[in-house]
Amino acid sequence: MKMKKITNYSKFSIKTNRISFSMDNILIVGTVALDTIETPFGRVKRALGGSATYASFAASLFSKPALISIIGTDFPKEYIELMKKKGIGLNGLKTTGKTFHWDGFYEYDMNEAKTRKTELNSLEHFKVDVPQEYKSIKYIFLANIDPELQLETLRQVDKPDFAVLDTMNFWINSKRKHLMDVIKKVDVLLINDGEARQLFNTVNLVNAANQVLKLGPKAVIIKKGEHGALLFTKNKHFSAPGYPLENIKDPTGCGDSFGGAFIGYLAKTKDLSEKNFRRAIVYGSVVASHNAEDFGLNRLKNLKMSDIERRYREFQDIREF
Amino acid sequence: MKMKKITNYSKFSIKTNRISFSMDNILIVGTVALDTIETPFGRVKRALGGSATYASFAASLFSKPALISIIGTDFPKEYIELMKKKGIGLNGLKTTGKTFHWDGFYEYDMNEAKTRKTELNSLEHFKVDVPQEYKSIKYIFLANIDPELQLETLRQVDKPDFAVLDTMNFWINSKRKHLMDVIKKVDVLLINDGEARQLFNTVNLVNAANQVLKLGPKAVIIKKGEHGALLFTKNKHFSAPGYPLENIKDPTGCGDSFGGAFIGYLAKTKDLSEKNFRRAIVYGSVVASHNAEDFGLNRLKNLKMSDIERRYREFQDIREF
Repeated sequence: MKMKKITNYSKFSIKTNRISFSMDNILIVGTVALDTIETPFGRVKRALGGSATYASFAASLFSKPALISIIGTDFPKEYIELMKKKGIGLNGLKTTGKTFHWDGFYEYDMNEAKTRKTELNSLEHFKVDVPQEYKSIKYIFLANIDPELQLETLRQVDKPDFAVLDTMNFWINSKRKHLMDVIKKVDVLLINDGEARQLFNTVNLVNAANQVLKLGPKAVIIKKGEHGALLFTKNKHFSAPGYPLENIKDPTGCGDSFGGAFIGYLAKTKDLSEKNFRRAIVYGSVVASHNAEDFGLNRLKNLKMSDIERRYREFQDIREF
Repeated sequence: MKMKKITNYSKFSIKTNRISFSMDNILIVGTVALDTIETPFGRVKRALGGSATYASFAASLFSKPALISIIGTDFPKEYIELMKKKGIGLNGLKTTGKTFHWDGFYEYDMNEAKTRKTELNSLEHFKVDVPQEYKSIKYIFLANIDPELQLETLRQVDKPDFAVLDTMNFWINSKRKHLMDVIKKVDVLLINDGEARQLFNTVNLVNAANQVLKLGPKAVIIKKGEHGALLFTKNKHFSAPGYPLENIKDPTGCGDSFGGAFIGYLAKTKDLSEKNFRRAIVYGSVVASHNAEDFGLNRLKNLKMSDIERRYREFQDIREF
């Protein structure tokens, strides 16, 4: 699909003084979930969640994402309306059975989600089926989901310009071989520091990053939570600072929204240089830091470009010397 | 003591194309030790070590430090010669009994030193006795040692311009009250992230930093090892990146050499602005990253200003966006 600016497509076009969106320029495969979350600061029940949801909300701040995922007939109508309002393409969202439900909590240190219950429900038999109109999308985000579904998505799309892969420790343990197969096919791997050490059997992140680059990706981004993020490309290294958050309410979806904002910014600017990766990483960090300040998608759903630009300038200030 | 440039004081003056030192402009109290260290990459036996040693070697790259510490009669002459060669003032170095000996090791992850044996020896009954000629020194570095000795040092010196405090978890556990008393008297507290969380009973580093600032210090620097360092002052925050080291041989003394380089750079430039703190932190990170690349003081003893400036420029590049 050729991308063009659409200025009077009233239902999906969003304009700020900085950007105007074109239709469906990022394809995101991942989960859409109902999340029950408890942290020391509160609790939400069956809130809108899932890796594809967080990623698409974040991407929608910069671009026009479309989803490949599955929900159940119990999925609240208001959540669908919210997604539509964000301009998220839903032609690839199937409905059958009950929605995937995650029930988890964070203890005082907020660094690690602990799972009380995972009900896969309709996700268990989910088969990727990319709608014809999405196959030519040039930016692909493989959000955290079974690596076999990520591979299948890549198989069904036309040659994309740019594919980004996110994952988690669960897949490192249970589907390592498939995960390695996806890594070989993408342009950028997003992974957190603990997972990078685990997957490449080293304590040293530079060593882990070099192993990734040998597999094929042009870049690897190591997410370190409060410590920021690292970018490794062939000869360059970038270190993005963490944002000094005093009040973290709920870290759920921070990694997903980081990834969504990262690819969202790249798809908007259509510049895949290392320099622009750096800016995209900072936009990712900005959006993720906002996300942690409220429960579920409460912050992202109302986030404005002016909030993003203000915090981006703060990121510039905190690393200056 | 008024500081003045000394250009032909042959024994202690060192000149590079960038700096010339004046005499004794930093007073450092801390330990001088013999270290037996084992890491996955090798082993050294009774190597020159101790918090004041690392700090003074690092400070000597920028300024003219003088030591307050104690050794034993077993202390090798060659180590004394090495310290003299670095221009370190030794009038405050007492000799009695046997030298403090630390025997420790690092496991594969290199993040935490494990102690096999600590022989305090002469350190056990060490009493601070600042020589008259050092009392007017304006920059004071309280390297990691018993907080009672740090307090006593502050008591004995004339009103200094600037005092920096370093500490470790051992003192948080065993001398918390004295440690809090020293914190109230210094301009800058250096502390690592785990210790900051422990001392202020919070997981949140912003919260811990705010508690420090309420106690009196104008700034707190949180050292995060491979994740870099954070600076918190009243209204500002700075995040220094970590340096991507692929080969860490021995992390012993990284915190001490960070602190020594930090105050060394400040004493050289005589600029105590927040902006200059940022540069001093990066110089601290540069020197500490070099320190980890070889055992004991092997790297610091031969480090050149050109190595430091080269890596400083790398630090500039890795945080640019």
